[in-house]
Amino acid sequence: MATSAAVQTSGRAGMSGAEARLACRSGAIPGSTAGVADGYVQANLAVFPESLADDFRRFAARNPKACPVIGESRPGSRAIPDLGLDLDLATDVPAYRVWRDGAVVAERAEVADLWRDDLVAFAIGCSFSFEAAMAEAGLPLRHVEMGVRVPMYRTTIPCAPAGPFAGPMVVSMRPLTPAQAIRAVEITGRYPAVHGAPVHLARSDLIGIADLGKPDYGDPVRIGPDEIPVFWACGVTPQSVIAAARPAFAITHAPGCMLVTDRLNADFAVDLAPASAMA
Amino acid sequence: MATSAAVQTSGRAGMSGAEARLACRSGAIPGSTAGVADGYVQANLAVFPESLADDFRRFAARNPKACPVIGESRPGSRAIPDLGLDLDLATDVPAYRVWRDGAVVAERAEVADLWRDDLVAFAIGCSFSFEAAMAEAGLPLRHVEMGVRVPMYRTTIPCAPAGPFAGPMVVSMRPLTPAQAIRAVEITGRYPAVHGAPVHLARSDLIGIADLGKPDYGDPVRIGPDEIPVFWACGVTPQSVIAAARPAFAITHAPGCMLVTDRLNADFAVDLAPASAMA
Repeated sequence: MATSAAVQTSGRAGMSGAEARLACRSGAIPGSTAGVADGYVQANLAVFPESLADDFRRFAARNPKACPVIGESRPGSRAIPDLGLDLDLATDVPAYRVWRDGAVVAERAEVADLWRDDLVAFAIGCSFSFEAAMAEAGLPLRHVEMGVRVPMYRTTIPCAPAGPFAGPMVVSMRPLTPAQAIRAVEITGRYPAVHGAPVHLARSDLIGIADLGKPDYGDPVRIGPDEIPVFWACGVTPQSVIAAARPAFAITHAPGCMLVTDRLNADFAVDLAPASAMA
Repeated sequence: MATSAAVQTSGRAGMSGAEARLACRSGAIPGSTAGVADGYVQANLAVFPESLADDFRRFAARNPKACPVIGESRPGSRAIPDLGLDLDLATDVPAYRVWRDGAVVAERAEVADLWRDDLVAFAIGCSFSFEAAMAEAGLPLRHVEMGVRVPMYRTTIPCAPAGPFAGPMVVSMRPLTPAQAIRAVEITGRYPAVHGAPVHLARSDLIGIADLGKPDYGDPVRIGPDEIPVFWACGVTPQSVIAAARPAFAITHAPGCMLVTDRLNADFAVDLAPASAMA
């Protein structure tokens, strides 16, 4: 369903990461964090019992574009101090999904009563970070222009498996002209911690997408006659993998409702510097 | 016409830049310098009367992807010491083209007798440099596999004009899978002095190429069913522009017959280094 997140949250763009997190905690931001706290890194969340943490850590390491881990909690802890000193993993995401045996059994505003001594939380980079860099470079973001959610698709690209974790990569799509697509590869490639460069472009048939007008998550967007679809690995991949791996218990964020951190997008950019031999 | 340059010149790959240049000077390498002196930068050549040098310098500055200048001679000099102390611009290219009023009037092995006190030579980066980096990364080079010249096309992409210099960009094409194309953008983007990242991909119709099987220069290559055409700005662009600008006199290299320099490809790479904020 189309929602004009950009309009609804325009007053929230100027918030700091900490201010936005407190607003999420208090319920003042109950839904999408798109457009909230410009410049601050937002994260996907995936929480598992400690018995599965090693496997998920390996899964993430083997699939760095889909699952770029930017923070991890100690078992039982609701904190990841690197991402925010006051951060509370059980209350600071606007909307959580509770999973049992691979199915969503509840969507809730906080999960403090479900937290257990054996839970380990993974914070995973999010495309909001590279979208800011794309917008700064003058590249269009069609879903933002249209005020809808980015279209996401399950693909035939297999994730590298680890333990019970396996399944198809989920991608997000942004339409660009070929020249813009090349620029977008250069720009988003500088953000390996937040999905990095695209994984595919142009030929959607080659990754099992039959109809770009029917995304598996999010909303369809218009593709111009001189544009090609450009696909990035998406932080919804862990949820598609949880559905396939069917762990007894897991918690995630609800799509679009992210964990806002104190880290700056700029901190996650890898800069181009001349090689010493150029001197 | 298909020629197996890779086979013919395999013994020349281990030459230094200076050795290869001497071999070209002596006539021992009379044609293509593809596969010669692995690791050393080769250059396109464009030579004009001083009265046109300012305009060409501006043209090159406005079209850095098609005309990345890596060296320039003083008026009347046949040397560019930065590219090789002994380098002789009038003898070290295996085959020269002599242009009058925008037409090739001769193709010769040396042009010492035509050199004038007012000539200024521009050495322009060449795709051989980034092809080496692509091969190192395991990306296929179809024209090398097939032992033919890279296919090149005149496009509808206009060069930014300067003085009499104007005209369409010429591009070279290499077929890649979409994932390989993304990797190729990242790799060749590190070589801005030798054409850098591609200028276009996938949709050849958008840049005026009606039939990929009929290149304007070079030879056609096979494109696999899971591949897209990827286009780079080409150092033949100055020759297409000379044909359009019709200067009274000019000298260039003959396509494929380059000036071998003492500079290393690695010197022209821009390295990825972590930003200080990542520390």
